[in-house]
Amino acid sequence: SGLVLVKNPHLDLMEEDILYHLDLGTKTHNLPAMFGDIKFVCVGGSPNRMRAFAQFMHRELGLAGDGEDVADICAGSDRYAMYRAGPVLSISHGMGIPSISIMLHELIKLLHHAKCRDVTIIRIGTSGGLGIEAGSVVITDTAVDSSFQPRFEQVVLGDVVVRSTELDKDLAEELLACSRDIPDFPTLIGHTMCTYDFYEGQGRLDGALCSFSSEKKLEYLRRAYDAGVRNIEMESTAFAALCGLCGLKGESCRFHLL
Amino acid sequence: SGLVLVKNPHLDLMEEDILYHLDLGTKTHNLPAMFGDIKFVCVGGSPNRMRAFAQFMHRELGLAGDGEDVADICAGSDRYAMYRAGPVLSISHGMGIPSISIMLHELIKLLHHAKCRDVTIIRIGTSGGLGIEAGSVVITDTAVDSSFQPRFEQVVLGDVVVRSTELDKDLAEELLACSRDIPDFPTLIGHTMCTYDFYEGQGRLDGALCSFSSEKKLEYLRRAYDAGVRNIEMESTAFAALCGLCGLKGESCRFHLL
Repeated sequence: SGLVLVKNPHLDLMEEDILYHLDLGTKTHNLPAMFGDIKFVCVGGSPNRMRAFAQFMHRELGLAGDGEDVADICAGSDRYAMYRAGPVLSISHGMGIPSISIMLHELIKLLHHAKCRDVTIIRIGTSGGLGIEAGSVVITDTAVDSSFQPRFEQVVLGDVVVRSTELDKDLAEELLACSRDIPDFPTLIGHTMCTYDFYEGQGRLDGALCSFSSEKKLEYLRRAYDAGVRNIEMESTAFAALCGLCGLKGESCRFHLL
Repeated sequence: SGLVLVKNPHLDLMEEDILYHLDLGTKTHNLPAMFGDIKFVCVGGSPNRMRAFAQFMHRELGLAGDGEDVADICAGSDRYAMYRAGPVLSISHGMGIPSISIMLHELIKLLHHAKCRDVTIIRIGTSGGLGIEAGSVVITDTAVDSSFQPRFEQVVLGDVVVRSTELDKDLAEELLACSRDIPDFPTLIGHTMCTYDFYEGQGRLDGALCSFSSEKKLEYLRRAYDAGVRNIEMESTAFAALCGLCGLKGESCRFHLL
């Protein structure tokens, strides 16, 4: 049916669903009227960048006005920022799996309550590249954990539940095809490794703690490369798992900065 | 010596240390002049609340001016917000362990470069209470993971490293003594459980996914209570581990909302 699924039998029994961290709710807002026509959701870490992206989409879509005064739909909360440009929502998710997970739970419920259909969600932003040219864009085929496995281990009531992290292969190919029209950005499809920690977790030598040698770091990153990893970031496994479970066609697309 | 420790031999070899997510650096900023006299650091999730806290501290300390125009020291970055009021720094850390870890790595390096001495760090904010009166303040003696163990499992180059999550017991008692002067807030010392997920991880029935019954949830929360847990949040184990390793006297102090 193309509808966004929630997999929670308790939700139907609730009189009101408050999306706490988005400052929205089923009694306080007419979610179908506000969001029913949304077809694309783009998410990224930084609120300023997601605002700039909404302004860019506004111009690209040729919408009325210059789009500079785009309003933060979640202005009542400082946890996340949300903007829209026509059928495109642009939302920030902060840094790390816990932060994006809270946003995705509430976004998925929002799209469900709003009765949205055939929604595509794309994660955009920066990442650390692995053996690729600076300025490259990596389109994720599969998100892997720090052991290079395509899984998201989620602790539910103290027990570990393992979830799949496959992303939409057709969407990845579609995005790669689009990239051919843009000559300035080398674009490739590869695995994306997701870590819980930016400094020690990604083998960086410039954190407050670092217990390993640069040789050990290089050996680890070489193993990651050999396993197909082309970039490293901090949200992709949770993003892939939650989108997959809830019927959202999802893709992760990261710009490699360094 | 009371100095803040970094445990990274690579740092001394670096010509410049850029604190990326704070938009500060050793070449672009005179960190000893800016921060050398800092004695207290208070951290919490929300940037707006940490701004309000700095304004509150400004008034409490009787500093010149009304403190309303307190400037964000990290204004060049939208990852975190940082304010100061006299010897007190007030910094936001976003939501979840990965987000607070990035901030703490950079904060610890900042305090180290600034040659700060005898710094106390206190985490403040809201949490979910467990079997306690609404409006209570929980002062954490030990942060525990979702198996109620006093440990922080950190993945370093794909391997799990286990770290202690003890907090400063004297500081906890000192804070408890302060609370006796404030009649409106029941205050107690207890364990704080830290989860990676707000919805499924904390046994909430209102996420986009929920695979357990309310009975299973209650049974889990009862076990947590019996293990000494009095509140649940999403950063305390990483906070305790990093502060402990770097010689920061740390404490976590959470207001129970519901």
